[in-house]
Amino acid sequence: MDLENDINQTNEYYINNNIAIIHKKPTAITIHHVDYTTTTIKEAYFKTPSTTDYNGIYKGHYIDFEAKETKNKTSFPLSNIHPHQLNHLESIMVHGGIGFIIVRFTTLNKTYLLNGDDLFNLLKDKAIKSIPINYFIQKGFIIKEGYIPRLDYLKIIDILYFGGSNEKIN
Amino acid sequence: MDLENDINQTNEYYINNNIAIIHKKPTAITIHHVDYTTTTIKEAYFKTPSTTDYNGIYKGHYIDFEAKETKNKTSFPLSNIHPHQLNHLESIMVHGGIGFIIVRFTTLNKTYLLNGDDLFNLLKDKAIKSIPINYFIQKGFIIKEGYIPRLDYLKIIDILYFGGSNEKIN
Repeated sequence: MDLENDINQTNEYYINNNIAIIHKKPTAITIHHVDYTTTTIKEAYFKTPSTTDYNGIYKGHYIDFEAKETKNKTSFPLSNIHPHQLNHLESIMVHGGIGFIIVRFTTLNKTYLLNGDDLFNLLKDKAIKSIPINYFIQKGFIIKEGYIPRLDYLKIIDILYFGGSNEKIN
Repeated sequence: MDLENDINQTNEYYINNNIAIIHKKPTAITIHHVDYTTTTIKEAYFKTPSTTDYNGIYKGHYIDFEAKETKNKTSFPLSNIHPHQLNHLESIMVHGGIGFIIVRFTTLNKTYLLNGDDLFNLLKDKAIKSIPINYFIQKGFIIKEGYIPRLDYLKIIDILYFGGSNEKIN
Protein backbone atom coordinates (compact mmCIF):
# COMPACT_ATOMS: atom_id res chain seq x y z
CA MET A 1 0.00 0.00 0.00
CA ASP A 2 1.30 3.43 -0.82
CA LEU A 3 1.03 6.50 1.37
CA GLU A 4 -1.85 8.05 -0.56
CA ASN A 5 -3.94 4.92 -0.17
CA ASP A 6 -3.11 4.68 3.52
CA ILE A 7 -4.21 8.27 4.07
CA ASN A 8 -7.36 7.91 1.98
CA GLN A 9 -8.38 4.80 3.94
CA THR A 10 -7.62 6.59 7.20
CA ASN A 11 -9.71 9.59 6.15
CA GLU A 12 -12.56 7.25 5.26
CA TYR A 13 -12.28 5.77 8.76
CA TYR A 14 -12.33 9.26 10.29
CA ILE A 15 -15.45 10.19 8.29
CA ASN A 16 -17.30 6.94 8.98
CA ASN A 17 -16.58 7.26 12.69
CA ASN A 18 -17.48 10.92 12.80
CA ILE A 19 -13.98 11.88 13.97
CA ALA A 20 -13.02 14.35 11.25
CA ILE A 21 -13.92 15.28 7.70
CA ILE A 22 -10.75 15.34 5.64
CA HIS A 23 -10.57 14.69 1.90
CA LYS A 24 -7.90 14.51 -0.74
CA LYS A 25 -8.51 17.10 -3.42
CA PRO A 26 -8.90 15.81 -6.96
CA THR A 27 -5.88 16.10 -9.25
CA ALA A 28 -5.74 19.58 -10.74
CA ILE A 29 -6.21 19.43 -14.50
CA THR A 30 -7.14 21.67 -17.41
CA ILE A 31 -9.70 20.06 -19.69
CA HIS A 32 -9.23 20.85 -23.38
CA HIS A 33 -11.58 18.46 -25.09
CA VAL A 34 -14.61 16.46 -24.00
CA ASP A 35 -16.51 14.04 -26.20
CA TYR A 36 -20.03 14.88 -25.10
CA THR A 37 -21.61 11.87 -26.83
CA THR A 38 -19.86 9.61 -24.31
CA THR A 39 -19.00 12.26 -21.65
CA THR A 40 -15.37 11.24 -21.98
CA ILE A 41 -12.49 13.65 -21.44
CA LYS A 42 -10.31 13.18 -24.52
CA GLU A 43 -7.63 15.79 -23.89
CA ALA A 44 -6.57 17.27 -20.59
CA TYR A 45 -3.35 18.42 -18.95
CA PHE A 46 -1.99 18.28 -15.42
CA LYS A 47 -1.86 21.67 -13.72
CA THR A 48 0.57 22.86 -11.07
CA PRO A 49 -1.43 22.57 -7.85
CA SER A 50 -1.97 25.86 -6.02
CA THR A 51 -2.79 24.20 -2.72
CA THR A 52 -1.86 21.12 -0.74
CA ASP A 53 -3.64 17.84 -1.48
CA TYR A 54 -5.52 17.36 1.78
CA ASN A 55 -7.76 19.56 3.85
CA GLY A 56 -10.75 19.40 6.13
CA ILE A 57 -12.03 19.93 9.65
CA TYR A 58 -11.09 18.27 12.95
CA LYS A 59 -12.47 19.24 16.35
CA GLY A 60 -13.76 22.45 14.83
CA HIS A 61 -10.36 23.38 13.41
CA TYR A 62 -9.26 23.78 9.83
CA ILE A 63 -6.66 21.13 8.91
CA ASP A 64 -4.34 21.27 5.89
CA PHE A 65 -1.44 19.08 4.87
CA GLU A 66 0.68 17.61 2.13
CA ALA A 67 1.86 13.99 2.06
CA LYS A 68 4.87 12.70 0.17
CA GLU A 69 7.00 9.60 -0.17
CA THR A 70 10.72 9.51 -0.74
CA LYS A 71 13.13 6.64 -1.40
CA ASN A 72 15.91 8.77 0.00
CA LYS A 73 17.29 7.45 3.33
CA THR A 74 18.99 10.52 4.72
CA SER A 75 16.76 13.44 3.85
CA PHE A 76 13.54 14.58 2.22
CA PRO A 77 14.26 16.65 -0.91
CA LEU A 78 12.08 19.77 -0.93
CA SER A 79 11.82 19.48 -4.71
CA ASN A 80 9.07 16.96 -3.88
CA ILE A 81 6.77 19.76 -2.74
CA HIS A 82 5.91 22.62 -5.06
CA PRO A 83 6.74 26.13 -3.70
CA HIS A 84 3.06 27.11 -4.21
CA GLN A 85 2.08 24.34 -1.86
CA LEU A 86 4.53 25.45 0.81
CA ASN A 87 3.35 29.05 0.51
CA HIS A 88 -0.23 27.86 0.80
CA LEU A 89 0.55 25.83 3.91
CA GLU A 90 2.33 28.75 5.54
CA SER A 91 -0.61 31.09 4.80
CA ILE A 92 -3.00 28.59 6.31
CA MET A 93 -1.07 28.74 9.57
CA VAL A 94 -1.07 32.54 9.52
CA HIS A 95 -4.88 32.34 9.24
CA GLY A 96 -5.10 30.07 12.30
CA GLY A 97 -5.28 26.68 10.62
CA ILE A 98 -3.41 23.53 11.57
CA GLY A 99 -0.79 22.77 8.92
CA PHE A 100 1.76 19.97 8.63
CA ILE A 101 3.43 17.54 6.27
CA ILE A 102 3.47 13.76 6.31
CA VAL A 103 6.60 12.21 4.83
CA ARG A 104 7.18 8.51 4.32
CA PHE A 105 10.74 7.28 3.94
CA THR A 106 9.81 4.17 1.98
CA THR A 107 13.23 2.54 2.19
CA LEU A 108 13.33 3.01 5.96
CA ASN A 109 9.64 2.10 6.25
CA LYS A 110 9.00 5.06 8.54
CA THR A 111 6.30 7.72 8.25
CA TYR A 112 6.72 11.06 10.02
CA LEU A 113 4.43 13.96 10.73
CA LEU A 114 6.26 17.28 10.90
CA ASN A 115 4.26 20.20 12.23
CA GLY A 116 4.10 23.39 10.18
CA ASP A 117 5.85 25.48 12.85
CA ASP A 118 8.89 23.22 12.79
CA LEU A 119 8.83 22.99 9.01
CA PHE A 120 8.79 26.73 8.49
CA ASN A 121 11.36 27.38 11.22
CA LEU A 122 13.74 25.27 9.19
CA LEU A 123 12.76 26.88 5.88
CA LYS A 124 13.62 30.36 7.17
CA ASP A 125 17.05 29.37 5.89
CA LYS A 126 16.34 29.88 2.18
CA ALA A 127 19.38 27.81 1.23
CA ILE A 128 17.77 24.61 2.54
CA LYS A 129 17.12 22.14 -0.27
CA SER A 130 16.12 19.12 1.79
CA ILE A 131 15.03 18.21 5.31
CA PRO A 132 17.53 15.88 7.00
CA ILE A 133 16.09 12.70 8.48
CA ASN A 134 17.54 13.82 11.82
CA TYR A 135 15.23 16.80 11.80
CA PHE A 136 12.25 14.46 11.46
CA ILE A 137 13.63 12.29 14.26
CA GLN A 138 14.21 15.30 16.50
CA LYS A 139 11.14 17.45 15.77
CA GLY A 140 8.70 15.14 14.01
CA PHE A 141 6.54 12.28 15.20
CA ILE A 142 6.44 8.75 13.88
CA ILE A 143 2.97 7.80 12.69
CA LYS A 144 2.51 4.16 13.54
CA GLU A 145 0.95 1.97 10.89
CA GLY A 146 -2.03 -0.07 11.92
CA TYR A 147 -4.82 -2.08 10.46
CA ILE A 148 -7.79 0.24 11.05
CA PRO A 149 -7.10 3.08 10.78
CA ARG A 150 -4.03 2.51 8.61
CA LEU A 151 -2.23 5.68 9.63
CA ASP A 152 -3.73 7.45 12.63
CA TYR A 153 -2.11 10.84 12.07
CA LEU A 154 -4.75 12.71 14.07
CA LYS A 155 -3.31 11.07 17.19
CA ILE A 156 -0.24 13.23 16.61
CA ILE A 157 -2.41 16.32 16.05
CA ASP A 158 -4.04 15.56 19.41
CA ILE A 159 -0.60 15.62 21.03
CA LEU A 160 0.46 18.81 19.25
CA TYR A 161 -2.76 20.81 19.56
CA PHE A 162 -5.31 19.25 21.89
CA GLY A 163 -3.42 18.14 24.97
CA GLY A 164 -3.11 14.50 23.91
CA SER A 165 -0.60 12.36 25.78
CA ASN A 166 2.79 13.95 25.28
CA GLU A 167 4.74 10.72 25.45
CA LYS A 168 6.81 10.95 22.29
CA ILE A 169 6.11 7.82 20.31
CA ASN A 170 9.30 7.61 18.25
CA MET B 1 -19.38 36.48 -16.19
CA ASP B 2 -20.75 33.31 -14.65
CA LEU B 3 -21.03 32.57 -10.96
CA GLU B 4 -17.98 30.30 -10.83
CA ASN B 5 -15.79 33.00 -12.35
CA ASP B 6 -17.17 35.62 -9.99
CA ILE B 7 -16.40 33.43 -6.99
CA ASN B 8 -12.96 32.48 -8.23
CA GLN B 9 -12.05 36.13 -8.77
CA THR B 10 -13.42 37.00 -5.34
CA ASN B 11 -11.40 34.22 -3.73
CA GLU B 12 -8.30 35.50 -5.48
CA TYR B 13 -9.02 38.94 -4.04
CA TYR B 14 -9.44 37.42 -0.56
CA ILE B 15 -6.12 35.59 -0.87
CA ASN B 16 -4.20 38.54 -2.28
CA ASN B 17 -5.52 40.79 0.49
CA ASN B 18 -4.87 38.23 3.20
CA ILE B 19 -8.57 38.11 4.12
CA ALA B 20 -9.24 34.39 3.68
CA ILE B 21 -7.85 31.35 1.91
CA ILE B 22 -10.65 29.72 -0.02
CA HIS B 23 -10.20 27.65 -3.17
CA LYS B 24 -12.41 25.83 -5.62
CA LYS B 25 -11.54 22.16 -5.69
CA PRO B 26 -10.51 20.73 -9.04
CA THR B 27 -13.15 18.79 -10.98
CA ALA B 28 -13.26 15.21 -9.72
CA ILE B 29 -12.21 12.81 -12.47
CA THR B 30 -10.95 9.27 -12.90
CA ILE B 31 -7.97 9.08 -15.23
CA HIS B 32 -7.90 5.98 -17.45
CA HIS B 33 -5.17 6.73 -19.93
CA VAL B 34 -2.23 9.13 -20.00
CA ASP B 35 0.12 9.54 -22.93
CA TYR B 36 3.37 9.90 -21.02
CA THR B 37 5.38 11.04 -24.04
CA THR B 38 3.40 14.30 -24.01
CA THR B 39 1.97 14.07 -20.44
CA THR B 40 -1.50 14.38 -21.93
CA ILE B 41 -4.56 12.78 -20.37
CA LYS B 42 -6.21 10.94 -23.27
CA GLU B 43 -9.10 9.26 -21.48
CA ALA B 44 -10.76 10.34 -18.26
CA TYR B 45 -14.25 10.38 -16.81
CA PHE B 46 -16.14 12.77 -14.58
CA LYS B 47 -16.75 11.42 -11.09
CA THR B 48 -19.64 12.18 -8.75
CA PRO B 49 -18.16 14.69 -6.30
CA SER B 50 -18.12 13.56 -2.67
CA THR B 51 -17.73 17.07 -1.30
CA THR B 52 -18.76 20.60 -2.11
CA ASP B 53 -16.69 22.61 -4.57
CA TYR B 54 -15.33 25.30 -2.26
CA ASN B 55 -13.58 25.23 1.08
CA GLY B 56 -10.99 27.07 3.08
CA ILE B 57 -10.31 29.15 6.16
CA TYR B 58 -11.66 32.54 7.26
CA LYS B 59 -10.91 34.23 10.59
CA GLY B 60 -9.57 30.92 11.87
CA HIS B 61 -12.78 29.06 10.94
CA TYR B 62 -13.31 26.27 8.47
CA ILE B 63 -15.56 27.44 5.59
CA ASP B 64 -17.37 25.15 3.14
CA PHE B 65 -19.93 25.88 0.47
CA GLU B 66 -21.50 24.97 -2.82
CA ALA B 67 -22.43 27.50 -5.52
CA LYS B 68 -25.01 26.96 -8.24
CA GLU B 69 -26.84 28.88 -10.91
CA THR B 70 -30.42 28.32 -11.99
CA LYS B 71 -32.51 29.83 -14.80
CA ASN B 72 -35.62 29.05 -12.78
CA LYS B 73 -37.39 32.19 -11.50
CA THR B 74 -39.51 30.78 -8.69
CA SER B 75 -37.36 28.18 -6.98
CA PHE B 76 -33.99 26.45 -6.86
CA PRO B 77 -34.34 22.77 -7.82
CA LEU B 78 -32.38 20.60 -5.38
CA SER B 79 -31.52 18.27 -8.25
CA ASN B 80 -28.76 20.84 -8.91
CA ILE B 81 -26.85 19.70 -5.83
CA HIS B 82 -25.83 16.08 -5.41
CA PRO B 83 -27.09 14.38 -2.20
CA HIS B 84 -23.42 13.55 -1.32
CA GLN B 85 -22.67 17.24 -1.35
CA LEU B 86 -25.58 18.08 0.93
CA ASN B 87 -24.59 15.30 3.34
CA HIS B 88 -21.03 16.60 3.31
CA LEU B 89 -22.17 20.15 4.05
CA GLU B 90 -24.36 19.00 6.91
CA SER B 91 -21.50 16.97 8.43
CA ILE B 92 -19.22 19.98 8.20
CA MET B 93 -21.64 21.96 10.34
CA VAL B 94 -21.87 19.13 12.89
CA HIS B 95 -18.07 19.34 13.16
CA GLY B 96 -18.19 23.08 13.84
CA GLY B 97 -17.54 24.44 10.37
CA ILE B 98 -19.33 27.28 8.61
CA GLY B 99 -21.44 25.87 5.78
CA PHE B 100 -23.73 27.57 3.27
CA ILE B 101 -24.86 27.65 -0.34
CA ILE B 102 -24.66 30.45 -2.88
CA VAL B 103 -27.42 30.38 -5.50
CA ARG B 104 -27.68 32.71 -8.46
CA PHE B 105 -31.05 33.13 -10.13
CA THR B 106 -29.61 34.13 -13.49
CA THR B 107 -32.93 35.26 -15.01
CA LEU B 108 -33.65 37.48 -12.00
CA ASN B 109 -30.01 38.56 -11.82
CA LYS B 110 -29.91 37.98 -8.06
CA THR B 111 -27.37 36.00 -6.04
CA TYR B 112 -28.29 34.74 -2.57
CA LEU B 113 -26.32 33.23 0.27
CA LEU B 114 -28.38 30.80 2.36
CA ASN B 115 -26.79 29.69 5.62
CA GLY B 116 -26.52 25.97 6.32
CA ASP B 117 -28.79 26.15 9.39
CA ASP B 118 -31.63 27.56 7.32
CA LEU B 119 -30.96 25.18 4.45
CA PHE B 120 -31.08 22.08 6.63
CA ASN B 121 -34.08 23.31 8.62
CA LEU B 122 -35.98 23.32 5.34
CA LEU B 123 -34.57 19.97 4.23
CA LYS B 124 -35.87 18.24 7.37
CA ASP B 125 -38.95 17.88 5.22
CA LYS B 126 -37.71 15.04 3.03
CA ALA B 127 -40.43 15.73 0.45
CA ILE B 128 -38.85 19.07 -0.50
CA LYS B 129 -37.59 19.00 -4.09
CA SER B 130 -36.75 22.67 -4.50
CA ILE B 131 -36.18 25.79 -2.43
CA PRO B 132 -38.75 28.49 -3.19
CA ILE B 133 -37.38 31.92 -4.05
CA ASN B 134 -39.40 33.27 -1.13
CA TYR B 135 -37.32 31.20 1.25
CA PHE B 136 -34.17 32.88 -0.10
CA ILE B 137 -35.84 36.30 0.21
CA GLN B 138 -36.96 35.54 3.76
CA LYS B 139 -33.94 33.67 5.18
CA GLY B 140 -31.13 34.34 2.74
CA PHE B 141 -29.01 37.36 2.01
CA ILE B 142 -28.49 39.07 -1.33
CA ILE B 143 -24.80 39.17 -2.26
CA LYS B 144 -24.26 42.45 -4.06
CA GLU B 145 -22.17 42.34 -7.21
CA GLY B 146 -19.28 44.72 -7.35
CA TYR B 147 -16.15 45.38 -9.32
CA ILE B 148 -13.47 44.27 -6.87
CA PRO B 149 -14.28 41.95 -5.25
CA ARG B 150 -16.94 40.72 -7.67
CA LEU B 151 -19.07 38.98 -5.06
CA ASP B 152 -18.17 39.80 -1.49
CA TYR B 153 -19.90 36.83 0.16
CA LEU B 154 -17.74 36.99 3.29
CA LYS B 155 -19.54 40.22 4.19
CA ILE B 156 -22.62 38.04 4.75
CA ILE B 157 -20.58 35.54 6.78
CA ASP B 158 -19.46 38.48 8.94
CA ILE B 159 -23.11 39.31 9.60
CA LEU B 160 -24.06 35.70 10.32
CA TYR B 161 -21.06 34.65 12.41
CA PHE B 162 -18.83 37.54 13.41
CA GLY B 163 -21.12 40.34 14.56
CA GLY B 164 -21.02 42.26 11.29
CA SER B 165 -23.67 44.94 10.79
CA ASN B 166 -27.03 43.21 10.97
CA GLU B 167 -28.80 45.57 8.61
CA LYS B 168 -30.39 43.15 6.18
CA ILE B 169 -29.18 44.17 2.75
CA ASN B 170 -31.97 42.71 0.60
